[in-house]
Amino acid sequence: MKYVSKERVIFSFNSKHEPVERVKPSELIVLEVEDAFGGQVKSEGDSLETLDWTRVDGATGPIYVEGAVPNDTLVVEILDIKPGDKGVIAVIPGYGALGSKEFRGKAKFVALKDGFAIFDGKTRVKIKPMIGTIGVAPPPGEEVPTSTPGRHGGNMDVKDVTSGTKLYLPVFAEGALFAAGDLHAVQADGELCVSSIEVAGQTLLRFDLIKGKSPRWPILETADSYMIIVAAEDLDKAAEIASREAVEALMREHGWSFEEAYMFGSLAVELKINQVVDPKKGVRAAIPKEYITLESLLR
Amino acid sequence: MKYVSKERVIFSFNSKHEPVERVKPSELIVLEVEDAFGGQVKSEGDSLETLDWTRVDGATGPIYVEGAVPNDTLVVEILDIKPGDKGVIAVIPGYGALGSKEFRGKAKFVALKDGFAIFDGKTRVKIKPMIGTIGVAPPPGEEVPTSTPGRHGGNMDVKDVTSGTKLYLPVFAEGALFAAGDLHAVQADGELCVSSIEVAGQTLLRFDLIKGKSPRWPILETADSYMIIVAAEDLDKAAEIASREAVEALMREHGWSFEEAYMFGSLAVELKINQVVDPKKGVRAAIPKEYITLESLLR
Repeated sequence: MKYVSKERVIFSFNSKHEPVERVKPSELIVLEVEDAFGGQVKSEGDSLETLDWTRVDGATGPIYVEGAVPNDTLVVEILDIKPGDKGVIAVIPGYGALGSKEFRGKAKFVALKDGFAIFDGKTRVKIKPMIGTIGVAPPPGEEVPTSTPGRHGGNMDVKDVTSGTKLYLPVFAEGALFAAGDLHAVQADGELCVSSIEVAGQTLLRFDLIKGKSPRWPILETADSYMIIVAAEDLDKAAEIASREAVEALMREHGWSFEEAYMFGSLAVELKINQVVDPKKGVRAAIPKEYITLESLLR
Repeated sequence: MKYVSKERVIFSFNSKHEPVERVKPSELIVLEVEDAFGGQVKSEGDSLETLDWTRVDGATGPIYVEGAVPNDTLVVEILDIKPGDKGVIAVIPGYGALGSKEFRGKAKFVALKDGFAIFDGKTRVKIKPMIGTIGVAPPPGEEVPTSTPGRHGGNMDVKDVTSGTKLYLPVFAEGALFAAGDLHAVQADGELCVSSIEVAGQTLLRFDLIKGKSPRWPILETADSYMIIVAAEDLDKAAEIASREAVEALMREHGWSFEEAYMFGSLAVELKINQVVDPKKGVRAAIPKEYITLESLLR
């Protein structure tokens, strides 16, 4: 098993970054990750204005996966996510679904205990640890901040990216150059205040490759669905792209005309909001596995 | 039990419409409803261009509920929804999530049998009958087409408006002037092709009133959540309004500051897409019942 420390952190996805570790497909690897604030929030009294924003939203990596070349699919099996025993959530003026409102910057520590996040003395939420930022280098010549989601993955903030799921990412650069960070102890669809319970921890991963074909956008495989994960400048555009990708995949799967697949989309393609607060907004189209196979989602 | 035939149909919500029936709170009433195409699609070969669009998207009613006055809440208990044994779904050029694409208008009949919609010989979808259009008259002087969702309810197209749920609507006019139509045998979040399996049928309802307070937007009570159902010109705006309503309700419920309630929203308020295809787009904010009571959703 390989182990990568949280000191090996990047703040953009870029094919020029030097890999910090190399793994073969099927090899196990543990990534240690810092919380999304770079571990800088030490007490609830800390003024968020003194945060060093260049140290926020890091991802541990990049990891070079042997044999990965452009147009392959990097399969990321998320075997486990182990959050620490304390997370931090913050509201930041100007940010989130209600960023246009006036409010004070504030951070709050949240204890994680017996599978629950203790929000306050009376209110607790069942934890469901997830990886907020997970992706690969974009095509050579491009650079994407780790705060931003896109076709390469990145800060998708999809609550279903949990232990037991598989993520299929398009490979754009040799070795894929994978990185991950931004663990959340729990997050609802929307992530409306801009952060969630941000927590340091470890994740155990195993990579695999599908050679010579790749998805246009990241695909998440859960127990019962394939989800096409899209990001765009607004939710409407993201919903349109996710709808088109889903309809085209249904056409390939069933040999349907556009019109038939479009109809079927109304019955079985669930459009879900990922988050409404990142530099690009996210929507995923979930198709139950009884109606789609992975084959039809790759090209 | 009162019974209202599908001939008693309106195409706008308007406090000027004459009620076709009067009921007391707790009285049972069955509404018969035509399908959203007004029963005009008689064969799959029918050219959709010959549809009389003035007969589309009707709602049966309006029903005058005794004792309802502005600022009350009309409680609509959906006791049963009984769809016919055949529905119709259609794609219409220029409409739906992919309306900018070129395609042909097409209608397709879908048999409903043994709890499933038979989409084609190999593909079937479990039915979950729901009411697409359900609402009350808007304030006097306003008129809203039945095709459009809003604070009065209307064409919300929320897949969770099923048998066993309760809808809380703000009353704007004497008697509330309730109407419902647009049954779907099944619909996924998004309703991406603009129609779903449109079906005629009956729904059994029971009304109640909460006097002197009302929700700002329709509230749906399901087995485990309260959902605030919002519509706006785009998804981003709808998500913002739904987030604000949810955060303000959490403040009232828990006595939290805005900042605390905003944080909690990231953990437990699920922003869900209703539909992306109607004259206004819809988002609902679902809050688990363990974190909110109905009291905090009414003012």
